[in-house]
Amino acid sequence: MTSASARLSGYGVHDERTARVAWARVAEPADDQALRWITERGALVAFADLVEHAAAGSGQAERFLLRLPEVRADRDLEIAERIGARILTPGDAEWPAELDDLLAPPWCLWVRGPLDLADASTRGVAVVGARAATSYGEHLAGQIAASLAARGFPVVSGAAFGIDAAAHWAALGEPSSDGQSEGAGTVAYLACGVDQVYPRAHHSLLRRISEEGAVVSEIPPGCAPLKHRFLLRNRLIAAGSRGTVLIEAGLRSGARATVGMAAALGRPVAAVPGSVFSAVSAGCHAEIRDQRAVLVTDPAEVIELMGAMGSDLSPASGGQARPGDDLTPQVRKIYDGLQPRRARSAEDLARRAGLGLSHVLASLGELQLVGMADRRADGWVKVTS
Amino acid sequence: MTSASARLSGYGVHDERTARVAWARVAEPADDQALRWITERGALVAFADLVEHAAAGSGQAERFLLRLPEVRADRDLEIAERIGARILTPGDAEWPAELDDLLAPPWCLWVRGPLDLADASTRGVAVVGARAATSYGEHLAGQIAASLAARGFPVVSGAAFGIDAAAHWAALGEPSSDGQSEGAGTVAYLACGVDQVYPRAHHSLLRRISEEGAVVSEIPPGCAPLKHRFLLRNRLIAAGSRGTVLIEAGLRSGARATVGMAAALGRPVAAVPGSVFSAVSAGCHAEIRDQRAVLVTDPAEVIELMGAMGSDLSPASGGQARPGDDLTPQVRKIYDGLQPRRARSAEDLARRAGLGLSHVLASLGELQLVGMADRRADGWVKVTS
Repeated sequence: MTSASARLSGYGVHDERTARVAWARVAEPADDQALRWITERGALVAFADLVEHAAAGSGQAERFLLRLPEVRADRDLEIAERIGARILTPGDAEWPAELDDLLAPPWCLWVRGPLDLADASTRGVAVVGARAATSYGEHLAGQIAASLAARGFPVVSGAAFGIDAAAHWAALGEPSSDGQSEGAGTVAYLACGVDQVYPRAHHSLLRRISEEGAVVSEIPPGCAPLKHRFLLRNRLIAAGSRGTVLIEAGLRSGARATVGMAAALGRPVAAVPGSVFSAVSAGCHAEIRDQRAVLVTDPAEVIELMGAMGSDLSPASGGQARPGDDLTPQVRKIYDGLQPRRARSAEDLARRAGLGLSHVLASLGELQLVGMADRRADGWVKVTS
Repeated sequence: MTSASARLSGYGVHDERTARVAWARVAEPADDQALRWITERGALVAFADLVEHAAAGSGQAERFLLRLPEVRADRDLEIAERIGARILTPGDAEWPAELDDLLAPPWCLWVRGPLDLADASTRGVAVVGARAATSYGEHLAGQIAASLAARGFPVVSGAAFGIDAAAHWAALGEPSSDGQSEGAGTVAYLACGVDQVYPRAHHSLLRRISEEGAVVSEIPPGCAPLKHRFLLRNRLIAAGSRGTVLIEAGLRSGARATVGMAAALGRPVAAVPGSVFSAVSAGCHAEIRDQRAVLVTDPAEVIELMGAMGSDLSPASGGQARPGDDLTPQVRKIYDGLQPRRARSAEDLARRAGLGLSHVLASLGELQLVGMADRRADGWVKVTS
């Protein structure tokens, strides 16, 4: 054993996986420098380099070095097992590939609950909104979440007061006789460790989700929900779902940030209108006015919009899959309107297909994600393999 | 005097103007055959031909011949004078040129009230909506109409129950000490003669409008509001204003028809959101979803959208006017982004100007109306003179 690998062993780090767990202890999510190091060198080499800095008494990467003494990746694996959590890293079958669309994917994820996170992220729809929701908003969040779950779309949210809680509870639904809910389940992304109960009042909500759905975090167990972690957490909700529904939100709100990130990722965004005199509808109205969100008034309209992402709700059956096999008729229509060389504007495609512009943009986002369309400066083109 | 002109004299018809008044008595608004005849031959020759048919006992144009005995155009001029109405025909200084954008402009118009109809149509904004409005809708109609009138935009509507009445009343405002209201006034287009009171309960509303604004109809005095005339009347509201605001409307409603016509004419359309559980917000939500209407939540947003039509609110001052002189900065920005030969999509223009697509479409509609832009199959081009 070299002295370097002996030093790594002291931190319980011996492969990419344990190195990523170690990084989760020393670097906040989306930390620029950690991201660059891990991307360029891999987590293990990057962590070894960090340890070298420490041994050399180097002044570099001080914020990581300060936390280095806490790292015991081997013990983190034990903690995970004790609290009933599994740790996911890129390459694991259950790793949600959707999160790799982020500029800064998580180092690793802790997951508690029976739901398969890869599957839930592909199918899932985020339902988000204000903590200080009105009964109007909570009612709609529940109605939409229940319909989504019943139609096979897991509901992704953040376990906060208000809209989040209403959405999770509705997705959980009534337990059936065998104690399991019948819908597609629900995923809660936390801004703290998956063993933490935050907010305190959501003890039973979080317990139900961890028993029937999935409680997920990129923050290690034992860690508190620091303020900046909520915004970072929101990017996981936006990326870990096929689209986002904004139920109620103030003009300045975390939920609008989630929506902005979902839109930036090319995912469809829906928003529910309300009274113009309601401060928590103002954010929804602003998103609709700015054409980042499509106005929706009921679950059917949400499902219409989110369903446009491809009918991948049934498990893959036998036979060689071909790109485009699982496109909905609407997405297929847009795809057929594209050409490999001559770029077409979304407006032009909308006219040809006889569809609304926002539907076309959602479909193009889907086609781009699956590598079947590409956006150029002058418009959209078909990608042929 | 030839026998033909003697026969015309019997109907009080002796020029284009009296011929148009006669046509208003024999043909319903937008009658296909009357429109073709009048457009091709002029109203006087077309009416002379009609009289010939009658003399010849021809079976042609029977629906006009049935009404021919009622025609006394000279007496119609007297009636107009007696009821304090003036009759406008195309070419009159007060004729609203905006109505000529219609496929079927009125044969003539009866107007009661001090407002100059040409001016009010250029500046005016239509505020329309459900008869069975809620207090939410009526409150907003009043708030928006009052702001429009105070900012120099006359409020155009249909004097119906609900939204229309709330908009008219708010535009009238409180009379000042000299008995005149201070705002830009209001225009009511009726589906019956301007001497009729319909609905009955709006006696005092119609009286106030005829004293301070303008009560207008293409239906001759004495004639009742037949059912099909309401839809025909709606096209005058859509065309006789710079844009339309939909406050509340059911999914199937006359107000949505007005909005559809305004959009078809390239005029900007705004709609107010509301509860998804309100049947009279459903029409607004549908217009916003289909991107025919821009979501607005307050008077400032309405004025922002309608003001984009060019700052022609102040009377023309001296100096040679040049096309584009009176464009707002936003419309100017779009115009500057156009090229004479290379067509650009609205989406492309929106990206270049950093403006929302609906604003860009509204601006393009304005530029097209004033002949400064043209839509081709492949996009928009600048028109240079």
